[in-house]
Amino acid sequence: MNRVHQMFASHPNPASDAGEEAFALVVGAAECAAVCTTCADACLEEDDPAALRRCIRSCLDCADLCAVTGRLIARPGEQDPQTLRAQLDACAIACRACAEECERHAEAMEHCRFCAESCRACANACDRMRQAIVA
Amino acid sequence: MNRVHQMFASHPNPASDAGEEAFALVVGAAECAAVCTTCADACLEEDDPAALRRCIRSCLDCADLCAVTGRLIARPGEQDPQTLRAQLDACAIACRACAEECERHAEAMEHCRFCAESCRACANACDRMRQAIVA
Amino acid sequence: MNRVHQMFASHPNPASDAGEEAFALVVGAAECAAVCTTCADACLEEDDPAALRRCIRSCLDCADLCAVTGRLIARPGEQDPQTLRAQLDACAIACRACAEECERHAEAMEHCRFCAESCRACANACDRMRQAIVA
Amino acid sequence: MNRVHQMFASHPNPASDAGEEAFALVVGAAECAAVCTTCADACLEEDDPAALRRCIRSCLDCADLCAVTGRLIARPGEQDPQTLRAQLDACAIACRACAEECERHAEAMEHCRFCAESCRACANACDRMRQAIVA
Repeated sequence: MNRVHQMFASHPNPASDAGEEAFALVVGAAECAAVCTTCADACLEEDDPAALRRCIRSCLDCADLCAVTGRLIARPGEQDPQTLRAQLDACAIACRACAEECERHAEAMEHCRFCAESCRACANACDRMRQAIVA
Repeated sequence: MNRVHQMFASHPNPASDAGEEAFALVVGAAECAAVCTTCADACLEEDDPAALRRCIRSCLDCADLCAVTGRLIARPGEQDPQTLRAQLDACAIACRACAEECERHAEAMEHCRFCAESCRACANACDRMRQAIVA
Repeated sequence: MNRVHQMFASHPNPASDAGEEAFALVVGAAECAAVCTTCADACLEEDDPAALRRCIRSCLDCADLCAVTGRLIARPGEQDPQTLRAQLDACAIACRACAEECERHAEAMEHCRFCAESCRACANACDRMRQAIVA
Repeated sequence: MNRVHQMFASHPNPASDAGEEAFALVVGAAECAAVCTTCADACLEEDDPAALRRCIRSCLDCADLCAVTGRLIARPGEQDPQTLRAQLDACAIACRACAEECERHAEAMEHCRFCAESCRACANACDRMRQAIVA
């Protein structure tokens, strides 16, 4: 994901100077979106997917919100701080809900352990980005 | 979009009874996502897109958030109320920011007038869905 | 979805005249994306989701491809015919794969019957749009 | 993106053994989606965005198709080879169209140079994944 960093550095008119936090979140959200997508798919392939309904659902939601949040942050120009803050909040909440759900199964299933780690990291990256937004 | 209504009625285990509000929002968010996508594209094809940067950006963000919000609401099972509420808030904020931006150009460009109407309608559908979420 | 039609009519510089086919596909793809999302969710809530793994997966894929295909078509300006044709092909293939899968369960589960209908309709809308693309 | 690799290794029932190609594509598509999103945004902030309409449009399309293609590949279970192949084709075509467009501006704008590199890399990752799909 190194080119994302270069892209931010070559942007002609970024709305804010939150470069490092933005870069960290674009990478973290991309990882979390992919990890949650794979975790939902892996849960569905376990022997008893009926026991994992809530986990699958929280992974699907978290994947969706991480993908869209990363996309907003990947646009450094003309940002609307109010929209960004609200979306970062929603993403952090979805990440923590998914982490809690996956942590229940973390001992039994390695993919849920990795997924919970990824969700915690992305939630923290959302928080840091939120604090870095000016105005 | 009539089949969406039938789908909700045939779901075996919905998390809530917010059927009508959910249906209205899935339809309204799909319309707003498409309308905002077309409005960004139309603004870019106007004679002076440099004057419409903020409008294009708010349309892109609004399209993304409407698409993902509609997707969450289209999953009636195992919903996380906290995640839904936060996402509905973010979507309503993005819709109103986009409406305000498009309303500035509504007299000059018909697509911005239609887009603003669509954004206002979707923001209201988000508010109604939010109130319908139990717990 | 009437505003989508108005948006297309007010676009300043559409790449093609495929207005009616494009409008039909934007609406059909939005419906199919929502319907497939709900069908995956409904299948997961059925008594034996392990028997519906393939159906859930094909619904998730079809929802994703319909959403992104509708989005491309909702941008009438500066279209790349080669990209559009390839994406319309991929979407039609995913729709038909999902329809076949859902049709196996159409008698047992009403949501799969509605979903299959929606997938067939969207696949046909993709085919018509593909034929309407000039060059 | 290391956790994506761990996720694939811990999946209980992958449809194929195309682990390395799949991992490379999930990472490459996530990078290309983010890079193209930032490139469209950067082009819009350049002094004369009207001269970059086609570039902005190809970046938006490429970002969308990379995001959705990465998502399909991030689901290793119950894959439909026909759908995957068609989507990989569409993604590779969009990546190459975007690369060609960005290469025209690569000397004038660094972000277009990085974007073209990212698109070429992702197109190649699509090709390798396509060859790795069995049946």
